[in-house]
Amino acid sequence: MPYDVTKSYEMLARAERVIPGGVYGTRSPRFGVYGDFPVFTRSAGGSRFTDVDGNEYIDFMCAFGPIVLGYNHPAVEQATAKQAGRGNATTFASEVMLELAETLVARFPFAGWAMFGKNGSDVTTLATRIARARTGRMKLLAADGAYHGFDPWSVPDPSGIPPAHRTERDLFAWNDPASVHEVFDRNRGDVAAVIICPIKHDAMHDIELPSHEFLAAIRERAAGEQALLIIDDIRCGFRLHPSGASHLRYGLEPDLVCFGKAIGNGHPISVLMGRDELRDTAKSIYFSATHFLAAVPMAAALAVLATYDAEGAYEQMQSAGQALRDGLTAAARKSGVPVRYTGPVTMPNLLFDDDPQFKRGRLFSGMAARRGVIFHPRHNWFVSAAHTPADIATSVAVAEECFAAVARKTKAGEL
Amino acid sequence: MPYDVTKSYEMLARAERVIPGGVYGTRSPRFGVYGDFPVFTRSAGGSRFTDVDGNEYIDFMCAFGPIVLGYNHPAVEQATAKQAGRGNATTFASEVMLELAETLVARFPFAGWAMFGKNGSDVTTLATRIARARTGRMKLLAADGAYHGFDPWSVPDPSGIPPAHRTERDLFAWNDPASVHEVFDRNRGDVAAVIICPIKHDAMHDIELPSHEFLAAIRERAAGEQALLIIDDIRCGFRLHPSGASHLRYGLEPDLVCFGKAIGNGHPISVLMGRDELRDTAKSIYFSATHFLAAVPMAAALAVLATYDAEGAYEQMQSAGQALRDGLTAAARKSGVPVRYTGPVTMPNLLFDDDPQFKRGRLFSGMAARRGVIFHPRHNWFVSAAHTPADIATSVAVAEECFAAVARKTKAGEL
Repeated sequence: MPYDVTKSYEMLARAERVIPGGVYGTRSPRFGVYGDFPVFTRSAGGSRFTDVDGNEYIDFMCAFGPIVLGYNHPAVEQATAKQAGRGNATTFASEVMLELAETLVARFPFAGWAMFGKNGSDVTTLATRIARARTGRMKLLAADGAYHGFDPWSVPDPSGIPPAHRTERDLFAWNDPASVHEVFDRNRGDVAAVIICPIKHDAMHDIELPSHEFLAAIRERAAGEQALLIIDDIRCGFRLHPSGASHLRYGLEPDLVCFGKAIGNGHPISVLMGRDELRDTAKSIYFSATHFLAAVPMAAALAVLATYDAEGAYEQMQSAGQALRDGLTAAARKSGVPVRYTGPVTMPNLLFDDDPQFKRGRLFSGMAARRGVIFHPRHNWFVSAAHTPADIATSVAVAEECFAAVARKTKAGEL
Repeated sequence: MPYDVTKSYEMLARAERVIPGGVYGTRSPRFGVYGDFPVFTRSAGGSRFTDVDGNEYIDFMCAFGPIVLGYNHPAVEQATAKQAGRGNATTFASEVMLELAETLVARFPFAGWAMFGKNGSDVTTLATRIARARTGRMKLLAADGAYHGFDPWSVPDPSGIPPAHRTERDLFAWNDPASVHEVFDRNRGDVAAVIICPIKHDAMHDIELPSHEFLAAIRERAAGEQALLIIDDIRCGFRLHPSGASHLRYGLEPDLVCFGKAIGNGHPISVLMGRDELRDTAKSIYFSATHFLAAVPMAAALAVLATYDAEGAYEQMQSAGQALRDGLTAAARKSGVPVRYTGPVTMPNLLFDDDPQFKRGRLFSGMAARRGVIFHPRHNWFVSAAHTPADIATSVAVAEECFAAVARKTKAGEL
């Protein structure tokens, strides 16, 4: 049966009449592969989802990260259905919030407390407020190009944001200790905090692990200036270290850590955890919204933590991710197409050499979609514990065909 | 059986070890009535919830607004359970998003399109971005004291926020046409938008409906300066007008309207709707987060809209709210305690005269909680379609006892 996404694109045409762009944000087919990627999904389970045309895909985007145990994991969905029967948002807190906070504080030794939001941005912004309120200083240092959420101070697109609302931030270059020293020198006495992701995972760039010298410079200067260290672990959390806390993989000693995505396996929850000494500052800051204390995503998070440990999810992801990397890099080599397959195996990123406009990447990913595998052309991928050896074998076989096609078209001068 | 919230407060003591403040935000017992209000809930259904000590309450806070049809409404929960079985957050959009956007655009004649977020703040901030990007101007005008979310530009508590991030906003006084003229004069040529709620519902103040002259001044000056009008209908939506759109009650002609709370009946979704002419600007702005396109809250919103209409939820709320107002104001009169019962009947606010520290309010609300009714001492209440005549009768009888106690203690000079 030939690949058919007619219904997806008919629905997109309808959607464009009632939603700006039809689909906005990273899920837009224009960010992926317009014409080849599906636009609308109908159902999802395990490592796969089915689109509105009935095509099934092995999905290496995992909903852009949150799906760490597989879509609709029974243990998580049973826990959330049970909690939903009791209540979700209520006028007061739900008892599950206490259980979740106690579980998290016991799990992550650096932390004395936890707070909960919906979006990752809710907690990255809260972390900056706590750091600024605690230190009485205003400057936030971050890596140039790093994404820390869609709030005005951090979103890359400045449209409609007063320039003043994007001040009080200064940037260093990832893995460049000299630039860390420069930015600290430039802002001496005014640095509230450094915020970094555990790895550099900027969209459309190779993933870079942090160098020892880079982290040492941050550690040394933050300590010297008594600036706080905020780890934005929203995208990497639960994929880089078996405890879930990526900072342990790199020996970082954070003051504040932001979690999101994977901790809910698709249910909306974000978490800020902090050192004991920051508790009173955190308590003094107004942080409230209708759904922050909702019970169902907290029940999800508890089930995710238990299942992650019980099923050895980290080890499964490592193993599936390693097999995917081995298979794909071998396939690329065989085709003669030079690629860069970067990042931890559970969060890989595939970019093609000499591909400034992502033409090769889009051909590759579009062909893979047509063969039932979702690889993204310019955003890192995510491996989940639901990716089976059979999924990997199928995906590697698909990738072989796609690399071969890229090689043919490159040779023919069409790319 | 004497009222007992021992378990709630034991759990609060435990929570204070792992969560700053134990419970933060408006759900904190310290914002309500410490010692008398429950802290943690176990289950909720219809107009009621049960706390961890087993006390059941008729709840006039409705989770601070979202519960418009009653907790765990079967039609909504069946729709969300069905969607949860298919998927929630996925790598692409879900087909239910298109259905929801089409339903909303058909429902609200002013609007050409809809976009979806999680928190109310997601869409109030997006509205400001669209207005500023569209006009190329930076100033946002708002009513002094109005709440438009917890984002840095708007949250009342400025701790940890750089002062620069709170600039580009100027304030007028509610129902003061002269101050509207002054703020427009002061910012001539630089006003991107006016943002207002349909009524003044600032916590700890009487609710005030908008005067004709006030709205006329906003309309005239916004038109003259080609500034946009943003209606923040997050708290009032679906309680002030049978269509759900509160601006219709007051004859407002908005460019952008923010919905939240009630539209999900407890499921996390917020909505921005806008005029057709703003579609391209909206499309040009990056607005993306992990859970914005999640399907389950969209399935909830569709079920809420259908149920709201089918069950005559607006009329039910009007009727229950009118009975509550009639009963409570009569009870207050009988007790001789002077109170102000302000606001639309579906969103009433009860404040006591000569009560600057809310001592009378807290006595009243604390006693009501002990008798199984949640009335808040300093935040407006919410009536839902699940509040039955029996609920109202019980609550009025409870209020009579509480007003009488306030009268006694006032006479005794204890308040």
